[in-house]
Amino acid sequence: MTELNTAEHVQALGQQAKKASALMAKASAAVKNQALRRLAALLRDNTEALQQDNAQDLTRAQANGLSEPMVDRLKLTPKVLETCAQGCEQLAAMPDVIGEILGMKQMPSGIRVGQMRVPIGVFGMIFESRPNVTIEAASLSIKSGNACILRGGSEAIDSNKALAKLVQQALVESGLPVDAVQLVQTTDRAAVGQLITMPQFVDVIIPRGGKGLIERISAEAKVPVIKHLDGNCHTYVDDPCDIAMAVKVADNAKTQKYSPCNASESLLVAKGVAAEFLPKIGTIYAAKGVEMRCCPKSKAILSQVSGAQLQDASEQDWFEEYLAPIISIKVVEGLDEAIAHINHYSSHHTEAILTRDHMHAQRFLREVDSSSVMVNASTRFADGFEYGLGAEIGISTDKFHARGPVGIEGLTSLKYVVLGEGEIRR
Amino acid sequence: MTELNTAEHVQALGQQAKKASALMAKASAAVKNQALRRLAALLRDNTEALQQDNAQDLTRAQANGLSEPMVDRLKLTPKVLETCAQGCEQLAAMPDVIGEILGMKQMPSGIRVGQMRVPIGVFGMIFESRPNVTIEAASLSIKSGNACILRGGSEAIDSNKALAKLVQQALVESGLPVDAVQLVQTTDRAAVGQLITMPQFVDVIIPRGGKGLIERISAEAKVPVIKHLDGNCHTYVDDPCDIAMAVKVADNAKTQKYSPCNASESLLVAKGVAAEFLPKIGTIYAAKGVEMRCCPKSKAILSQVSGAQLQDASEQDWFEEYLAPIISIKVVEGLDEAIAHINHYSSHHTEAILTRDHMHAQRFLREVDSSSVMVNASTRFADGFEYGLGAEIGISTDKFHARGPVGIEGLTSLKYVVLGEGEIRR
Repeated sequence: MTELNTAEHVQALGQQAKKASALMAKASAAVKNQALRRLAALLRDNTEALQQDNAQDLTRAQANGLSEPMVDRLKLTPKVLETCAQGCEQLAAMPDVIGEILGMKQMPSGIRVGQMRVPIGVFGMIFESRPNVTIEAASLSIKSGNACILRGGSEAIDSNKALAKLVQQALVESGLPVDAVQLVQTTDRAAVGQLITMPQFVDVIIPRGGKGLIERISAEAKVPVIKHLDGNCHTYVDDPCDIAMAVKVADNAKTQKYSPCNASESLLVAKGVAAEFLPKIGTIYAAKGVEMRCCPKSKAILSQVSGAQLQDASEQDWFEEYLAPIISIKVVEGLDEAIAHINHYSSHHTEAILTRDHMHAQRFLREVDSSSVMVNASTRFADGFEYGLGAEIGISTDKFHARGPVGIEGLTSLKYVVLGEGEIRR
Repeated sequence: MTELNTAEHVQALGQQAKKASALMAKASAAVKNQALRRLAALLRDNTEALQQDNAQDLTRAQANGLSEPMVDRLKLTPKVLETCAQGCEQLAAMPDVIGEILGMKQMPSGIRVGQMRVPIGVFGMIFESRPNVTIEAASLSIKSGNACILRGGSEAIDSNKALAKLVQQALVESGLPVDAVQLVQTTDRAAVGQLITMPQFVDVIIPRGGKGLIERISAEAKVPVIKHLDGNCHTYVDDPCDIAMAVKVADNAKTQKYSPCNASESLLVAKGVAAEFLPKIGTIYAAKGVEMRCCPKSKAILSQVSGAQLQDASEQDWFEEYLAPIISIKVVEGLDEAIAHINHYSSHHTEAILTRDHMHAQRFLREVDSSSVMVNASTRFADGFEYGLGAEIGISTDKFHARGPVGIEGLTSLKYVVLGEGEIRR
């Protein structure tokens, strides 16, 4: 497509989405759930055909010399498709949040006032590589009564087109508008610029991908963006604490998986427990090949640990999200220094305190300015499924609208509902 | 100040506000309430001095030829100051929303997950003329544990400076940071441009003023804006309805006061009740001097009413917020046309249906896409105090974050709180 055609195409998607969103907003829970179950069935029935479409993407990716992990993320295996189908069925089985009325109260004037949960309208999702995100986003959009416009990565365009077609088939067969889920049909990059600057059609943008992509979108968008840039998460080992528990949790927070944004990247240790705690965690990290970037005090203690890979931490290390077997370690005076350090260096994603002191726990919860704050638990729990949200559209490190893991409610809005019997204002 | 100095001044305010906000976030309810009561006392003790400062603004305004209503709005009479003082005391008497924990639930993993209400951080308020907004904004900011930067109208600069000084005195005497409430000290217009483009220091902007000001701020801001542009509110008289009640409510919605944004600007009438309802409401509007801009059908019926000022409604009339004794009137087929008309022409502020039909009421509530939807009540009720919010920082017609009348909760954010006993992720 030419640039002009791309702009017109995305504009048209916007107009159509806006129209479809009004119909989706009033669709009953039964009809939306029917569409989700139909989509699950279509994914299972079309597993072979989808793999053929996917093969085109894979062939092109290999010809273009994409790395093995990148090619892996593109693959629509029968297992990936079955997971997508099950996800749709799980959403269908969940109660509908749309139309729920919160806090209806009678006022002195006689009117009753509450708030009704309604869809936000139209969201745009911009994502890279993994084509299964098409189904995740589409199913969340259907369940939440929104319309959406999806823009996937160019490397997955054939898979995405095939999946979006099945979504639209499920919509139409269930009596819902075909434009409730639309895929941008071109790989032209100008489409993203257009999609994020149509406040008249799109209510919120959700980008998923690398930090560069998300930063660019946030800077240029003319509509709200639900995003998180990075997860520099901290685990603080307080004095007093249960050392055995602290070792277990600090180990899990770093090493259970290195790549997620909720893995701990920095370990703060109160000086009163450093001599006892650090050699124990250091031995585990050393055995797992985790490099430790240390302040002078922690380095002095950890140098006793045989096989430990120790480095001096630079100022930059305290800001770093490694997503790798590396952790920064600092001995602090106590709670005050830990909170100050975290509020200065953290990306405001997730932080945990490991402590036996109730007052310390309360202050940490109140004063640490992050989207998730934890006491005696692994930062790895910061996740929509672990929080019982049922589904996760992303994690937000912003304070406006949604903060932390964002579930279906993040795609909704509350409007005031007033019930009267002819009351007038005096 | 030169432009450079203004930019530096506002930057400095931002830095100081950010620092103060961390201290405000952890201040106890008792200390914040003490500051509010101290402020009330200072306003009463300094009524005479404040009137002298105010006199400078008034003299300048008259010399500059400001209109009488504009000069009136500038006045800090003893009554206005007493209202401000009482407002502070009422806020002090309200429970504190900061630190409340919502929905703490135990998950299968063993962790308990809930959400804690915390201040949003720093807000900027931009307002015109009325200096009492300085006290309103300052008191809401203190109560909600935020820091704020206030930018008042240049015509009220002397009054605003005097009021802000008292606020800072109350803060310091209560042990709170002096920079928790700061006033932009220059009338240079460049200050606004700087204030709305400092996402590193300011979390949200709240403009109050004319539509032009708010549109400009929304277009140029680099941070979220809580705003409403206009209130084209509708009252829909359904078939069947209680005609006597409908006449009473439609009268109140238009004529109780013409200037508020929640006054009805458009009246839709189902054709089945038009012949009975329109002459009755028309007689009242005619007696009160309300001009009626009509569709052909309503004009034909209303032409029977003696003394009625009738005009043909233009397409533009259906979009109009008159804020004056003018109302547009249209006869519609029924509920479907009423909902479609409202969703097309409304500014998504407040709409009411007057009906006896339960199904119609439910559909209106669900399908009308406005920040307040009402059954059998006057649109004039769309107001923070009438909704029991205790205080109102503004009304939002956006769907993101806050929608409808915005109380103190609109200046807060929810972070996730996780309590464990050493749980790790498997």
